[in-house]
Amino acid sequence: MKNWIITSLQNPRVKQAVKLRDKRERDRAQSFLIEGYRELLRGVEGGVPLVGLFFSPGHFLGTNESALIENIRQQGVEVMEVSKVVFEKMSYRDRPDGLLAIATQTHLSLQDLDYKISKDHPPFFLIAESIEKPGNLGTILRSCDAAGVDALLVCDRCTDIFNPNVVRASVGTLFTVPVVEVGSEEAIEWLKDHKIKAVAATPDAPETFTKTDLTGPIAVAVGTEQLGLSKKWMEQADIQVSIPMHGAADSLNVATATTLLLYEVLRQRA
Amino acid sequence: MKNWIITSLQNPRVKQAVKLRDKRERDRAQSFLIEGYRELLRGVEGGVPLVGLFFSPGHFLGTNESALIENIRQQGVEVMEVSKVVFEKMSYRDRPDGLLAIATQTHLSLQDLDYKISKDHPPFFLIAESIEKPGNLGTILRSCDAAGVDALLVCDRCTDIFNPNVVRASVGTLFTVPVVEVGSEEAIEWLKDHKIKAVAATPDAPETFTKTDLTGPIAVAVGTEQLGLSKKWMEQADIQVSIPMHGAADSLNVATATTLLLYEVLRQRA
Repeated sequence: MKNWIITSLQNPRVKQAVKLRDKRERDRAQSFLIEGYRELLRGVEGGVPLVGLFFSPGHFLGTNESALIENIRQQGVEVMEVSKVVFEKMSYRDRPDGLLAIATQTHLSLQDLDYKISKDHPPFFLIAESIEKPGNLGTILRSCDAAGVDALLVCDRCTDIFNPNVVRASVGTLFTVPVVEVGSEEAIEWLKDHKIKAVAATPDAPETFTKTDLTGPIAVAVGTEQLGLSKKWMEQADIQVSIPMHGAADSLNVATATTLLLYEVLRQRA
Repeated sequence: MKNWIITSLQNPRVKQAVKLRDKRERDRAQSFLIEGYRELLRGVEGGVPLVGLFFSPGHFLGTNESALIENIRQQGVEVMEVSKVVFEKMSYRDRPDGLLAIATQTHLSLQDLDYKISKDHPPFFLIAESIEKPGNLGTILRSCDAAGVDALLVCDRCTDIFNPNVVRASVGTLFTVPVVEVGSEEAIEWLKDHKIKAVAATPDAPETFTKTDLTGPIAVAVGTEQLGLSKKWMEQADIQVSIPMHGAADSLNVATATTLLLYEVLRQRA
């Protein structure tokens, strides 16, 4: 057991971690950051391959951190204690809780989802097209986890799913929900091949989402914060539904609208 | 029409605006900031009293800004053009759109809501207890607007509703939804007096929210991001419901859960 503590921001491992806030570096190194106890726990449970772990006991908020660190150390991962000052510089959170790991990116393809097309229940996917804000993508992941969707298809990505703010806003559900990054054309083909209907929400739809049959094999599709789904997806959507709006504003937050649609599918299938 | 442009951050009006990012200054001056075209438009439509307006034409993203500025000027509000550099320092957004106003805070009391208790439909309120993140409170306001709730009761506030990030995340629906800041004890009394049942979401509830009758006079109650509703509200809640969770994570974002509950009320009442 090593007793020394990293006290310098010039430490090469620390510098490597800080660099991973940058998308280009994440793409190049095929690595990313996982900060926080809950996120890291879900990563470990989900089998995410870790490369290194930094910890700062002075920041721990709970009592289970040591067990998690020991678990990770026993997997042969390099575990490094850092000073409070160094950890605060490395952290990208308002309230650091003393745990930050470097992990290796893993990528799924549409073919990897074939096993998800179960005979127990009609397939249930979410398509997120060109979502811009990492916080929204993270919240969408959290709702996918809660609603038990089979997988999330991130189409024509604007935000990479390994952005630290996606990991944070997802509260680690990035590691529990299967995610495929794919082009829209390819996703549309794949849905057709598997006879899965795309469901799009649009104010112009003739019927509301709670009065439309969503019990068959479906992929709910949502688009950018500013413009909604692209024409490509709108034209492709087999089912169009509206979400009632009773106020002055004309739209809900995209993550909120997504959750309404996912839970309506659950309600109808219950 | 004045032709001069404010080019200094030392301008007293500019300094006054920047200070309003700070809660203590907002409380002291009973003023707050409204940034952005959509937010300002909804503020004007909602009759929010403005004190001053700063604009920077180089930042305009649309074509309707001039008409809105002219409208505000004709109400006798001081209108000031500022340089791009000054506006960028004043703005608290990622993508400033060249409009920032100082407005006077107005406050409603529970008594002001009595007229909202309509005979046309059963009363429909939302209680938000001790929400911490301005972004969540703003998103909750947006959902209140969309779902057409009669009013939002902010109980035992942690975030003041005039925080710039509440205004931003609400996309101006802070000015379309009646909001009362009030202590929990007083709110509980008021609900009892008006025979409005409190609905609380908790994993321990015997029945899910979609299988519970929500058509009567109700106030949906949601609590802090970390801990949910306090014991005080849980004990008070006449109706308890659960939201099904099918994944690894144990909870949804508070704003997301709120929206599910509000829209379920709408669905049942439709």
